[in-house]
Amino acid sequence: MFIGAQVSLYPMTSDFVGVILSGLEALAPYRDQLRIETDDISTLMVGAPGPLFDAIRDLFARAAQQPPQQPAHVTLHATLSRGCPGEPDDPSCRCEILAVAQDQPLAERQAQAQAAVAAAPVLGVAIDVQFSLYVLGAGGHMDEIYGCIDFLKTSGTFLKSKNFCTRLRGDAGAVFETLRQAFLRFGPAQGHVTIDLTCSANSPSAR
Amino acid sequence: MFIGAQVSLYPMTSDFVGVILSGLEALAPYRDQLRIETDDISTLMVGAPGPLFDAIRDLFARAAQQPPQQPAHVTLHATLSRGCPGEPDDPSCRCEILAVAQDQPLAERQAQAQAAVAAAPVLGVAIDVQFSLYVLGAGGHMDEIYGCIDFLKTSGTFLKSKNFCTRLRGDAGAVFETLRQAFLRFGPAQGHVTIDLTCSANSPSAR
Repeated sequence: MFIGAQVSLYPMTSDFVGVILSGLEALAPYRDQLRIETDDISTLMVGAPGPLFDAIRDLFARAAQQPPQQPAHVTLHATLSRGCPGEPDDPSCRCEILAVAQDQPLAERQAQAQAAVAAAPVLGVAIDVQFSLYVLGAGGHMDEIYGCIDFLKTSGTFLKSKNFCTRLRGDAGAVFETLRQAFLRFGPAQGHVTIDLTCSANSPSAR
Repeated sequence: MFIGAQVSLYPMTSDFVGVILSGLEALAPYRDQLRIETDDISTLMVGAPGPLFDAIRDLFARAAQQPPQQPAHVTLHATLSRGCPGEPDDPSCRCEILAVAQDQPLAERQAQAQAAVAAAPVLGVAIDVQFSLYVLGAGGHMDEIYGCIDFLKTSGTFLKSKNFCTRLRGDAGAVFETLRQAFLRFGPAQGHVTIDLTCSANSPSAR
């Protein structure tokens, strides 16, 4: 299986380059576990869902605290994908959850996802998230999506449903664990699943 | 059918609010054809693909020229969706192309898409785009995606393939017509199709 993301960081400040470079420092612990390649639009990260979601989380949490005196409004977008039939198999992407999740009933997967979110670390950075989960190449894809939404509503990070997407809010630790669980536990374990993800911090908009 | 997008504009400048407000002025001609609702993360636009893609195009093209003396680096993200089984039918979203596209062979749809891009208006704003097309709830989804990629390669706006997505580059008129054709002519006409879209202009990154 091939698992990865195209990730872009958008600091709404004239010093956006400085914020991006500070954020990228948070990727250092993951560079030996992920393949990371940057161009002018996005950064490709390829690897197992453990380091992959942790790296995106830490990148965004770090950027959301820059500059330290007065953090800027910052957003992140990621296109996440697993199991795309057009991508080559990559041993570095191997994931135990996907290896055992096949054939587990929905209720069991929902319970495991909840437990994982409850055990997530607390990073002390409050974030807003909006995302869509897509299950491709399979009939009955909405059953898995509705099953995922039921999990989200019990995750402790659910804010509200919107057209085409779901809003989460909370500590970056719990929110990113919620996203990882949505990505791994719903849709066929060996199937093609993607997420369209937007994260936001320090927005001046009235909530 | 229900058709729409969640759209976010990200100007990489400390005056991001000013750029966003200037961009929003470009939506004025479309406000009676689209339902437009904004919150702190994104703006929902619901309506037919004609005004929908034109509105997103004009919003981004306008923002990419702000401030006029020295335009800022600006990006836009949109989550586009048609035919989601979870959304209600909406008469304002009716689209002639989707009404007749059912059962047309792939080669015919590719030729019509090419002709539409060739006839696109020239806006005089150069943009970069990265996007993914998702065909949901159907077997053989990759056939439609590969068929779309073949069209993209002949569209005149194709830049390159990347993991999980495709890069386009060109005038905003041709690029957004390419996106609209990808959205409408590939995947079942009455099916669930989404696009994860990123636009970029005035990037300081080396190309």
